[in-house]
Amino acid sequence: MNNRVTALLGSRLPIVQGGMQWVGRAELASAVSNAGGLGLLTALTQPTPEALGDEIERCRAMTDAPFGVNVTMLRTMQPPPYDRIFDVVLEQGVKIVETAGNVPEEVFRRLRDAGVTILHKCTSVRHALTAERRGVHIVSIDGFECAGHPGEDDVPGLVLIPAAVRALKVPVIASGGIASGAGMAAALALGAEGVNMGTRFVATVEAPVHDAIKQRLLEARETDTRLMFRTLRNTARVLSNAVSDEVIRLERRDGGATFDDLRPLVAGARGRAALESGDADDGVVWAGQVVGLIDDIPTCAVLLERMVRECRERLTAAAALLAC
Amino acid sequence: MNNRVTALLGSRLPIVQGGMQWVGRAELASAVSNAGGLGLLTALTQPTPEALGDEIERCRAMTDAPFGVNVTMLRTMQPPPYDRIFDVVLEQGVKIVETAGNVPEEVFRRLRDAGVTILHKCTSVRHALTAERRGVHIVSIDGFECAGHPGEDDVPGLVLIPAAVRALKVPVIASGGIASGAGMAAALALGAEGVNMGTRFVATVEAPVHDAIKQRLLEARETDTRLMFRTLRNTARVLSNAVSDEVIRLERRDGGATFDDLRPLVAGARGRAALESGDADDGVVWAGQVVGLIDDIPTCAVLLERMVRECRERLTAAAALLAC
Repeated sequence: MNNRVTALLGSRLPIVQGGMQWVGRAELASAVSNAGGLGLLTALTQPTPEALGDEIERCRAMTDAPFGVNVTMLRTMQPPPYDRIFDVVLEQGVKIVETAGNVPEEVFRRLRDAGVTILHKCTSVRHALTAERRGVHIVSIDGFECAGHPGEDDVPGLVLIPAAVRALKVPVIASGGIASGAGMAAALALGAEGVNMGTRFVATVEAPVHDAIKQRLLEARETDTRLMFRTLRNTARVLSNAVSDEVIRLERRDGGATFDDLRPLVAGARGRAALESGDADDGVVWAGQVVGLIDDIPTCAVLLERMVRECRERLTAAAALLAC
Repeated sequence: MNNRVTALLGSRLPIVQGGMQWVGRAELASAVSNAGGLGLLTALTQPTPEALGDEIERCRAMTDAPFGVNVTMLRTMQPPPYDRIFDVVLEQGVKIVETAGNVPEEVFRRLRDAGVTILHKCTSVRHALTAERRGVHIVSIDGFECAGHPGEDDVPGLVLIPAAVRALKVPVIASGGIASGAGMAAALALGAEGVNMGTRFVATVEAPVHDAIKQRLLEARETDTRLMFRTLRNTARVLSNAVSDEVIRLERRDGGATFDDLRPLVAGARGRAALESGDADDGVVWAGQVVGLIDDIPTCAVLLERMVRECRERLTAAAALLAC
């Protein structure tokens, strides 16, 4: 498949494995890239910039295909050492960076000046236009159905993807709500030039996640995710479990909850604990609504081959219907 | 286009104009049917069952193509005379009924026994399965992005359409989030066998709605709808205006709001007033998030011809991308 996205990413397929905390490690990123997609390491999963450098080297040893690094920029009291993270990314010669969150203009400039292809993930046309003006090469537009942070506008892909496509000149990657060739076909029909998947890639053989969590994803239906932190205007879509229920209960009580109230429940280490222990109630488990469409745990190679085949079949069948 | 939906509906195209209060009159329904889609009269828009009978006769005089009647069954203190409404529908020989809301099993039985094709609209796979078991011929699955009542599950079409398609044996029509050939192409790729549109048909020449309201729809963006009645678990998506803002304010105040508090703001007559006066702040104006994708007021014939052409182009272009 040759289009602007594969040309910019250097991948065989316009299918990106989105940055995912604790999951975006070399095992998964290399498997996705080897399967023809674009794998992404997640910078903040590593304890230090130096460890990220080691992870990049580890990934490079596992694939000859291009891969990238996701850097999500959070507004927090104690921000990660972003300058050092970007130093390492550039020193390591990484050519593709997925940015997300509140990215200062100078970060985009620095990456562009270094010849890096920037894939910026955002959740509204307004933010996408700003990112385009600041020089990103691709916008990954994240709909309401996505895992993680859908923003506060609540516009799903069926509307958000075409809205972004018609507003932007740079190519758009559809993110959120896609787990199969049917979803990919829909995204392409809506004008996207590629797709981003997160939840679907967690339920693969190579994802460094406890089997019991993958099993939990297979069992979940499309109604089994929850939005938490809504009252803090920092909404996050997660798998419904004991932790999400408790967070939402605290948010709904009289007087609401502050982030400090909720921090012990949702601390990063607890999310990691769940993924590693296999106890899905041990912490936050990110999942998009597509969790309801996932019912096997293939290798990344099998998944992507099947997706492309199904995508072709769906488009061809629908086009044939129109011809008669 | 020949598929199970066109075979069941007897229309040239699998494009349905969904039932819309105050809008689903003979002018619009006949225009949609004449353009090759399936137009629907909205039963509750008429003051009495007898007036509905007159409207059916008026519509029949305006088109030779099939059209149907929407009957939305509400749980209210003073329900409309549903038995008489169905009497009239059957006496008039109407062959297609769109049902929505809480439809008793005996209503489905009566319609089926009379040879009527039942198109049931619902917002979850769970309800769709129940309707299928009760013998409806087609399910119209309504995603989170839709105008009117999206239910309380908040699952948008990109996930809900394929979830419904794989759960059901009867054909699925995708409803909500569709306003163009691109959206239709996406719906078909996701496995739907037809599309339902509401908001898009309000912004047509033939819709019996004040021009100023149509203009307001053109100006609105995808972020310009609101969900009201959320706290009553009877969520409704409407255009953001003075009325929706006031309803939501009352719902958010300490102690919340009851339907009796809100009734004066949202009474049916006020919705009708807005559509007729052209003052969009005069009452509730229903609109789905696709309002952000609408920027002209074509005739129904121009709209449907363009949709089918664009749908074909999108599918063909995407399929061609896959071939290389």
